[in-house]
Amino acid sequence: MRILILGGDGYLGWPTSMHFSRRGHEVHALDDYLRRRAHAEAGTTSLTPILPSLPARTKAWREVTGLEIGVTEGDLLEWEVVERVFQEFQPEAIVHYGEMPSAPYSMIDREHATFTQTNNVIGTLNVLFAMAELAPDAHLVKLGTMGEYGTPNIDIEEGFITIDHNGRSDTLPFPKMPGSVYHLSKVHDSHNIHFACRIWGLRSTDLNQGVVYGIETDETKLDPRLATRFDYDEVFGTALNRFCLQAVIGHPLTVYGKGGQTRGYLNIVDTLRCVELAVLNPAEAGEYRVFNQFTEQFSILDLARQVHEAGTAYGLPVEVRHLENPRVESEEHYYNPAHTKLLDLGLEPHLLSETLIESMFVAIERHSDRVILDHIMPSTRWRPPARERTRR
Amino acid sequence: MRILILGGDGYLGWPTSMHFSRRGHEVHALDDYLRRRAHAEAGTTSLTPILPSLPARTKAWREVTGLEIGVTEGDLLEWEVVERVFQEFQPEAIVHYGEMPSAPYSMIDREHATFTQTNNVIGTLNVLFAMAELAPDAHLVKLGTMGEYGTPNIDIEEGFITIDHNGRSDTLPFPKMPGSVYHLSKVHDSHNIHFACRIWGLRSTDLNQGVVYGIETDETKLDPRLATRFDYDEVFGTALNRFCLQAVIGHPLTVYGKGGQTRGYLNIVDTLRCVELAVLNPAEAGEYRVFNQFTEQFSILDLARQVHEAGTAYGLPVEVRHLENPRVESEEHYYNPAHTKLLDLGLEPHLLSETLIESMFVAIERHSDRVILDHIMPSTRWRPPARERTRR
Repeated sequence: MRILILGGDGYLGWPTSMHFSRRGHEVHALDDYLRRRAHAEAGTTSLTPILPSLPARTKAWREVTGLEIGVTEGDLLEWEVVERVFQEFQPEAIVHYGEMPSAPYSMIDREHATFTQTNNVIGTLNVLFAMAELAPDAHLVKLGTMGEYGTPNIDIEEGFITIDHNGRSDTLPFPKMPGSVYHLSKVHDSHNIHFACRIWGLRSTDLNQGVVYGIETDETKLDPRLATRFDYDEVFGTALNRFCLQAVIGHPLTVYGKGGQTRGYLNIVDTLRCVELAVLNPAEAGEYRVFNQFTEQFSILDLARQVHEAGTAYGLPVEVRHLENPRVESEEHYYNPAHTKLLDLGLEPHLLSETLIESMFVAIERHSDRVILDHIMPSTRWRPPARERTRR
Repeated sequence: MRILILGGDGYLGWPTSMHFSRRGHEVHALDDYLRRRAHAEAGTTSLTPILPSLPARTKAWREVTGLEIGVTEGDLLEWEVVERVFQEFQPEAIVHYGEMPSAPYSMIDREHATFTQTNNVIGTLNVLFAMAELAPDAHLVKLGTMGEYGTPNIDIEEGFITIDHNGRSDTLPFPKMPGSVYHLSKVHDSHNIHFACRIWGLRSTDLNQGVVYGIETDETKLDPRLATRFDYDEVFGTALNRFCLQAVIGHPLTVYGKGGQTRGYLNIVDTLRCVELAVLNPAEAGEYRVFNQFTEQFSILDLARQVHEAGTAYGLPVEVRHLENPRVESEEHYYNPAHTKLLDLGLEPHLLSETLIESMFVAIERHSDRVILDHIMPSTRWRPPARERTRR
């Protein structure tokens, strides 16, 4: 199958590109290095050393495996780029990771907030128009986030919920209460994509993904040059990855507030498999379907305790520290999201274990001399400072 | 009260500015003439002759009433403009009409679609940041649209719905199924504003307005120079206004498809009163509330029949014509939205009547020599043409 990977240089985009390439698909990766630039601006970088560009990565891939991955270095905001890649590659499936993926980044200030929404919403609109005009039968596999739902006091369904109300019934989009400007951008995307399916007859699967952890996949392990990025800083680092790194370098585990914040999690190898299952089992024409893509749920404090336990067994002195929460969020809440649709398609989860955490310790130790300590503690605040109070 | 009117040059924005000014409030109107430019590009214009700029209009207002309305000619996409008007005027209430308001405009092509979402979503984000930083106690009265809900098969509530599910219950945002890229932009706004209230503690009232009809208010009637614009073209003209004009000039009434499309409607004088009620009864700090702002619901065919009847009584030969529907929408559907919250605040509706329609005929006849016939029939299609089918 001809598969276009948008955001093919990213933490998940690069391993996904290799995963499909190795399984015999024709893969084309597009990226404009937004994440690399954001890191450069902040003075942070990936723990793992990664090759400097997509062409360098695909060259290494060719040398290791003899397989080709096509490359476009370009921005989804530029219509000419999107139009050209759709015309030339004629994708049958589009896997769309091509967005600014960080909640803290989107909350830094007004500029970062408006950039995040413009970049994500308009980039995705361009993709939808390219599909409508140039690939109306292609299947969009879009990476959403479980964070779109927020933490409602009822069970979360997969995208839609049947509501009985005043003696009538309808199945409607599950209500959304996202917790950051970034998460809002994904909610906007969901509505736009749903519209493109309803009104234009496109087909799409929206993968509302949990927090991904892990550092290696079958393909990254083939050669050090094929490594994917691994972020641990306050902007791009996510909970379990950051905790494992903190354990290795002797930094306290940074639990925000009480740590009762519960989310869905999954191993990076399960992300690749979920995306593959979605691509191989496409939505119908006109269908917009949503899969909740995670395998287990944990509270932040659960995770910190598991890393503490695995670290202690591994011989690391691990301390768990509760920080004042920089975010505005519930620290204790009900959380019970459905996640059966990918299991029904054949997903066999790799669950979190002490062995997995230890293997992350090993992989992190290999590069622990590269850690930049300055950007581990959270500095971004969810509430913008009110200026006029001092001026009046 | 100091009231900032965003989009103060528009069909509703200008009468709202005069309405508040005449009632003793300090009013500042902002506009960058987006609608005037869109008309100029399309070769269309307002039926009513309107003065060429906000300064010209406020000068006439001063001459007629002795009252001042402040003016900023500027774009909400430019942060410096938004920041300056918030710093200098220090609004206590912000009435936000300042968006591209047309569904057909947003569906013309990719450029118009992405412009509409960028303009509306990012402009409103700028307003929210200006509030958070410079006016955290001010009250945002935002014009949304009933079109955000679409036409679900259950009763539509005012913004939120209590859902009982698997033995638990929560009150969550009412699910949205909008029918155009423009309506989607309003859904995105709603999520962003809700977030700003939940997370930043701002206060807002989102007025999900029905289709407004009418040509005169108490203030426009004071002097011909105070007229508001009246659109009848396929892009900016809305159902009843367009039908009344068609009846006057002997053009068939353009019913799209079967005409069973049912929507909420209200008189322009009720819009002004609803906005006033929202401003005078502000939301609490941290509260995001939604009022469904309409007074009656009609199907398109109901409206055409009422105009036919009133026209016949008035001596006009009226023909009702069913056109192939250029939109993708249900032409027969359940529709029962709640609309009690504004009534509870004291709204006394001006319902549609033969007398009202006749008064619109009279007002339209005064300017019927200005009608441009070319742009009455719909040309915008809801489905973009697929290009590759001919190219492959």
